[in-house]
Amino acid sequence: MGSLDTTPTATATFADINGSGGFQPLNADDVRSYLHKSVDFIYDYYKSVESLPVLPGVEPGYLRRLLQSVPPTSSAPFDIALKEVRDAVVPGMTHWASPNFFAFFPATNSAAAIAGELVASAMNTVGFTWQANPAATEMEVLALDWLAQLLRLPSTFMNRTAAAGRGSGGGVILGTTSEAMLVTLVAARDAALRRSGSVGVAGITSLAVYAADQTHSTFFKACRLAGFDPANIRSIATGPETDYALDPAKLLEIMLADVDAGLVPTYICATVGTTSSNAVDPVGAIADVAAMFDAWVHIDAAYAGSACICPEFRHHLAGVERVDSISMSPHKWLMTCLDCTCLWVRDAHRLTDSLETNPEYLKNDASESGNVTDLKDMQVGVGRRFRGLKLWMVMRTYGAAKLQEHIRSDVAMAKMFEEAVRADDRFEVVVPRNFALVCFRIRPEGAMTEEDAEEVNRELMERLNRTGKAYLAHTVVGGKFVLRFAVGSSLQEERHVRSAWELIKKTTTEIMEEARDVVEN
Amino acid sequence: MGSLDTTPTATATFADINGSGGFQPLNADDVRSYLHKSVDFIYDYYKSVESLPVLPGVEPGYLRRLLQSVPPTSSAPFDIALKEVRDAVVPGMTHWASPNFFAFFPATNSAAAIAGELVASAMNTVGFTWQANPAATEMEVLALDWLAQLLRLPSTFMNRTAAAGRGSGGGVILGTTSEAMLVTLVAARDAALRRSGSVGVAGITSLAVYAADQTHSTFFKACRLAGFDPANIRSIATGPETDYALDPAKLLEIMLADVDAGLVPTYICATVGTTSSNAVDPVGAIADVAAMFDAWVHIDAAYAGSACICPEFRHHLAGVERVDSISMSPHKWLMTCLDCTCLWVRDAHRLTDSLETNPEYLKNDASESGNVTDLKDMQVGVGRRFRGLKLWMVMRTYGAAKLQEHIRSDVAMAKMFEEAVRADDRFEVVVPRNFALVCFRIRPEGAMTEEDAEEVNRELMERLNRTGKAYLAHTVVGGKFVLRFAVGSSLQEERHVRSAWELIKKTTTEIMEEARDVVEN
Repeated sequence: MGSLDTTPTATATFADINGSGGFQPLNADDVRSYLHKSVDFIYDYYKSVESLPVLPGVEPGYLRRLLQSVPPTSSAPFDIALKEVRDAVVPGMTHWASPNFFAFFPATNSAAAIAGELVASAMNTVGFTWQANPAATEMEVLALDWLAQLLRLPSTFMNRTAAAGRGSGGGVILGTTSEAMLVTLVAARDAALRRSGSVGVAGITSLAVYAADQTHSTFFKACRLAGFDPANIRSIATGPETDYALDPAKLLEIMLADVDAGLVPTYICATVGTTSSNAVDPVGAIADVAAMFDAWVHIDAAYAGSACICPEFRHHLAGVERVDSISMSPHKWLMTCLDCTCLWVRDAHRLTDSLETNPEYLKNDASESGNVTDLKDMQVGVGRRFRGLKLWMVMRTYGAAKLQEHIRSDVAMAKMFEEAVRADDRFEVVVPRNFALVCFRIRPEGAMTEEDAEEVNRELMERLNRTGKAYLAHTVVGGKFVLRFAVGSSLQEERHVRSAWELIKKTTTEIMEEARDVVEN
Repeated sequence: MGSLDTTPTATATFADINGSGGFQPLNADDVRSYLHKSVDFIYDYYKSVESLPVLPGVEPGYLRRLLQSVPPTSSAPFDIALKEVRDAVVPGMTHWASPNFFAFFPATNSAAAIAGELVASAMNTVGFTWQANPAATEMEVLALDWLAQLLRLPSTFMNRTAAAGRGSGGGVILGTTSEAMLVTLVAARDAALRRSGSVGVAGITSLAVYAADQTHSTFFKACRLAGFDPANIRSIATGPETDYALDPAKLLEIMLADVDAGLVPTYICATVGTTSSNAVDPVGAIADVAAMFDAWVHIDAAYAGSACICPEFRHHLAGVERVDSISMSPHKWLMTCLDCTCLWVRDAHRLTDSLETNPEYLKNDASESGNVTDLKDMQVGVGRRFRGLKLWMVMRTYGAAKLQEHIRSDVAMAKMFEEAVRADDRFEVVVPRNFALVCFRIRPEGAMTEEDAEEVNRELMERLNRTGKAYLAHTVVGGKFVLRFAVGSSLQEERHVRSAWELIKKTTTEIMEEARDVVEN
């Protein structure tokens, strides 16, 4: 009977392979050294990012001209990589961490979140099943239940309530809202196919899905990914009469017409805080309409969901107890670095019925007991990071009061900006501000057409962005070209909002004077 | 004309909101302090993880009994969160970083990768379009092109070749192989629908997809997510005659029969290194069959793809120049912490045709020029981390030679283990070892049935895992219950493999002696 001990050749080779002199990619001293250097880099970055142009002036392909295009053969000190990041990467970055960033929605962040992600990266566990990492699974479930409590979601959405055992609801942390939409669309699709007695997916051409035209484009993409027929994906027109929110009466009308045409209303996506203008679809009224058709209702509260931890904003979720699922992204406004999208469903089995897999190599007693959550069955993939840690660390370290303070501070800054805009006759606030996004523009005056207004506002945006001192994005609402001023970048203070406003006023004055000069000469 | 300057109330409120005394979640000193503490924690963790039980002995719900179930209202020093991680989280973890971890596939990691992820978390940019972060987009493209060169992928897969301008191919970093499968399945589905003249998705019930029965279960799930009819998702039987690889002749036969039945062969997934036993489907022969039907061929090389950076393993990808897409996950075997799955496609437009979105608020001149890559159009979601940085840092810091050394060292250790198993008459190696996974079992002897063999091997696995000194997973290959011994955890050295083998021998002896005692008494 052989063994390594009695096989000298093998033993010798073993020693050759990976002795103390071999390559040790996780040598603890190297890890500490590389990380300390990275921490110094980050410290310097945060100290200097305010002075960097928010939007870089680089041309496509710039990085390949600065870095070698062929992978190196030999190893190099970590300092070389860091130096190249400093010299080549940083100058080509759009600095989302800059306090002068007002575009899109801010990617808020915090010391606790970064630390949590760092520890998770180092532990580098893969928690597809409970057994594959009990702590990571339970931490994720706990973090989701904590956040559900902060949001005062009904206990039906929680994985375990404090008092009772396992509930029927459940949550999972995903990478993006799009994935939350996709997995719930698939669950709703499969349930509707079963209900309608479809043989296989034959009935898929009869299923219809609904959302306001202000819903994020990724929803319409997710519908196509899940195989819904493009002809049955309804984008329902909105207008200023509802501040661009979905009108439940219109929804009902369209759903009834679809039923008359032989279609099966399957899924409605309601948005709390649209990307374009922060419109809020009326959740409760939409749920009431959906109930008439047994259609799944999902709430996309990616951005504004975070605000709902404050009692004064919670009313935007009124009716959530009657929906099937809700997702929101702490990586947007709850100071948790990317990526972190929380999805809760009222009945976890409706998700797992569509998403469960059970290959032999993942079978284990814990899963078979039915007493544990295997998070792979609530997402697209199998592998998953230790996703719950950073979110839990944010809540554990800052506590509800600081999180609310952070939301309120951003909203107050946006409110001040809005008031300044309103007080300047040259501008108008185009839709009411609900959270920390202000949609405004230079007001068309006199003979100025909508086209002229678009031109002058686009010019304003481009000039602002070229200064490097502010970065704003735009949208089109009700046919109007509008500037979006999103407050909340985590290094932002009142002085940055004030400076941006001064820059906006000054640049507008310049544009108007130039226009007047053209007219006069 | 109002302004903040002339609105004292507003100014006063501004100062109140977020002055220097306010909550600063990204205060650079706090960031440095939290991260230094985290680095110390990680250092201690790596120094001690070897002595911790690989698989914890906790019961479902254990964490909730140790941590508070209600989110805190007030803030707490970061030390509190770290202490709770140390005291409550670590004891409930399955330690994937342990050198005694031999289950599943290892999640390999390195100092450079963790540092890269840390810097990315702190920069916290969202690179959905080129403009949203030119550096992040170009770094990702560069990292993918570097890795494609290490793998000697044909230049058609590269986003930009060194000599020429933009190619037709392209790559993207995703979170999981499942997402790579899903997005390519959707692209193939839409192309097949167009080719077959389907009105909307009506033709979806005629589309058929193919893979060996050894293909990861997530492929079959991805097919269902994309709306393929379960009746047309073919899992093709494999056997010992091909070492459990897909037989192209059998594939051809089934595809021909499907065409006869009016179906449209749409997509074939070939695996290089199956999860169960590391079988390698013959890529070139499969591509030849697929070409007869204009079907999309995807290679899933999640684990074994990393080995193909060594010339001696590259032959497993022979024929890759004739496939449509290939994915592999550096988070498995290329020392890049989760998550990091690289997908390359030969014709990027085939992906973007299905995945592109163009909402107003993301429109920008760079995208409209057609000269840049907008990575959101090659994935499910919109938001995305600075994904390329850590992968680039790994290649930049270690270089091709060290990466190859790392692969070879793991393979050599697995080979030594395999030889030890072969030299012990009580055991058998069930399928040939291709990479660093050894599939073995206690050999059924004498009157031992297959059922008895399963029982004794399961007993062996459970006893090993209960010791906390090793963690092995199992699979079933050809009806045989098999232990999977996966070498390669990044802290692993020869002595850990040797100890595990000693433990396996000792435990087997105990089991066999107990069985003999039962028979004798």
